[in-house]
Amino acid sequence: MRQAGRYLPEYREVRAKVGFSELTRSPELAAEVTLQPIRRFAFDASIIFSDIMVPLEGMGIDLDYAPGPVIAEPIRTMKQVEEMRSLEPQRDVPFVMEAIRLTRAGLPAHVPLIGFAGSPFTLFAYLVAGKPSKEFAVPRSFLHAEPQVSARLLEKLADAMIVYLRAQAAAGAQALMLFESWGGLLGPYDFRHVALPPVKRIFDGLKDLGVPLIYFANNCGTVLDIISELPVDVVGVDWRVPLAGARKLLPGKAIQGNLDPAVLFAPKATLEKRIDDVLADAGPAPGHIFNLGHGIWPEVDPDAITRLVDYVHERTAK
Amino acid sequence: MRQAGRYLPEYREVRAKVGFSELTRSPELAAEVTLQPIRRFAFDASIIFSDIMVPLEGMGIDLDYAPGPVIAEPIRTMKQVEEMRSLEPQRDVPFVMEAIRLTRAGLPAHVPLIGFAGSPFTLFAYLVAGKPSKEFAVPRSFLHAEPQVSARLLEKLADAMIVYLRAQAAAGAQALMLFESWGGLLGPYDFRHVALPPVKRIFDGLKDLGVPLIYFANNCGTVLDIISELPVDVVGVDWRVPLAGARKLLPGKAIQGNLDPAVLFAPKATLEKRIDDVLADAGPAPGHIFNLGHGIWPEVDPDAITRLVDYVHERTAK
Repeated sequence: MRQAGRYLPEYREVRAKVGFSELTRSPELAAEVTLQPIRRFAFDASIIFSDIMVPLEGMGIDLDYAPGPVIAEPIRTMKQVEEMRSLEPQRDVPFVMEAIRLTRAGLPAHVPLIGFAGSPFTLFAYLVAGKPSKEFAVPRSFLHAEPQVSARLLEKLADAMIVYLRAQAAAGAQALMLFESWGGLLGPYDFRHVALPPVKRIFDGLKDLGVPLIYFANNCGTVLDIISELPVDVVGVDWRVPLAGARKLLPGKAIQGNLDPAVLFAPKATLEKRIDDVLADAGPAPGHIFNLGHGIWPEVDPDAITRLVDYVHERTAK
Repeated sequence: MRQAGRYLPEYREVRAKVGFSELTRSPELAAEVTLQPIRRFAFDASIIFSDIMVPLEGMGIDLDYAPGPVIAEPIRTMKQVEEMRSLEPQRDVPFVMEAIRLTRAGLPAHVPLIGFAGSPFTLFAYLVAGKPSKEFAVPRSFLHAEPQVSARLLEKLADAMIVYLRAQAAAGAQALMLFESWGGLLGPYDFRHVALPPVKRIFDGLKDLGVPLIYFANNCGTVLDIISELPVDVVGVDWRVPLAGARKLLPGKAIQGNLDPAVLFAPKATLEKRIDDVLADAGPAPGHIFNLGHGIWPEVDPDAITRLVDYVHERTAK
């Protein structure tokens, strides 16, 4: 999950000066907001501040954050897909790699830095819909009405994310994560036939790097058996997923997750009980990386995160 | 799922004359739009046109449809909960029972009429949020910050839905369905401890009626084992759920679902293949009621529904 964010006063201070899009394109500021949560909390890893839509801007897509991504010309035709240019990270998004270099230089040696990208289906959902939507009816119906255009777009996005993630690793990212934010919009058949192939293509294109590969599968609790086929080291799951069952469905993979971020609003005793439940459900480490099951809401008290991190460390100390 | 809707030109014609809220309160017009899809399609059952928020208006909640429900004064305190009046259906929502009587009189004898209500947690989500939202962060955090107020509100909503559904059955509804539209916002622990108890209270309060009880559990694929404890005849599942697995998790219950409504945009051959897949996954009837896995979008061509119904009947004819 994104660690930087509006729940932190120091992040809001930066955002008072620059817009979201400008922040993603300013290496010094992106590194600064990436480091802010690491200074404040005893997190075991850091994730670079950016947005999954950033490489698409580099591919010539005109978009704005309002605050979700709004695409000036939603993708609906094969001509538009073919006109999207291939991504050349050093030409199109050099600021991301520079932010990674600056962040790595500023991080304590024992805190690894995670690079990330959006999954092809998730990017497809935004590009075809044109704006965030509750049900994403437009991209979901487009998949069935225009299967060839859809397949070509997904393939092109997969190829772009391979070079994008490889460039992040070359710049210093020590693990790579793919966010399947909208995979949960698909039933099992379409998840297997639409979302999975481009994701597999990406991870196959990264495995020679030798860095840990993480797949965050949001709201995909009913397709974990399908996800088990992916060549990844870690699967991140949302708060709806019972962890004991997930570990059985994902043999040989570590699980990351999955405290409901809503529990950050509970009193200390409840928060601790619910952390205990997650740890008990997950079973013995190694094989479990404690995390939230979804992003931190802006209204969260940063002190709740401190309590969370301290308690998890206390409970999992050797 | 609602059968009436904007995908039907005859429904849009009625809506050109009256607003949504007025339509729910006009028995003749509500009966008319309930009967429209039955005249056009060979559906095996009919569901009364209404909205899950209608009984809350009867309980004194000031709300508007924009188009999702917007609550003038979102519920946040015990005082507000205590001030919500109990529902007396004949006093507060007589038009719903009148619509049921008129619809029953207009339906062919072989088409049963389903009455419905919203689940307590789903109604809670709208009442506390105050407006529809992507993540419902406000009610989800409220649950943890104000557990006593939450529990009292859920209990009060359960009691209201019992009398509401009993009144619908007395007016002629031959099956009763509860829509857990937002249960999928909860992880397994909260689903069991927050959403389930008021639902069980409702079904326990209906079982002496002797009518089939249906629970539609949207996006609840990871908690079907918990749902199996409910005293219901039928569980409706969304399109994310593999039906073969669901039938194993719900012994003794029929399953209703679950074609992805997005598939209605596919060519005829694809639509038929996907219907075949649902039927094969569900296994032998009885025990499976074919349905969509979610509501019909306004952009759907009504002819796709005709093709769907005809093909399902052809494939399942004795």
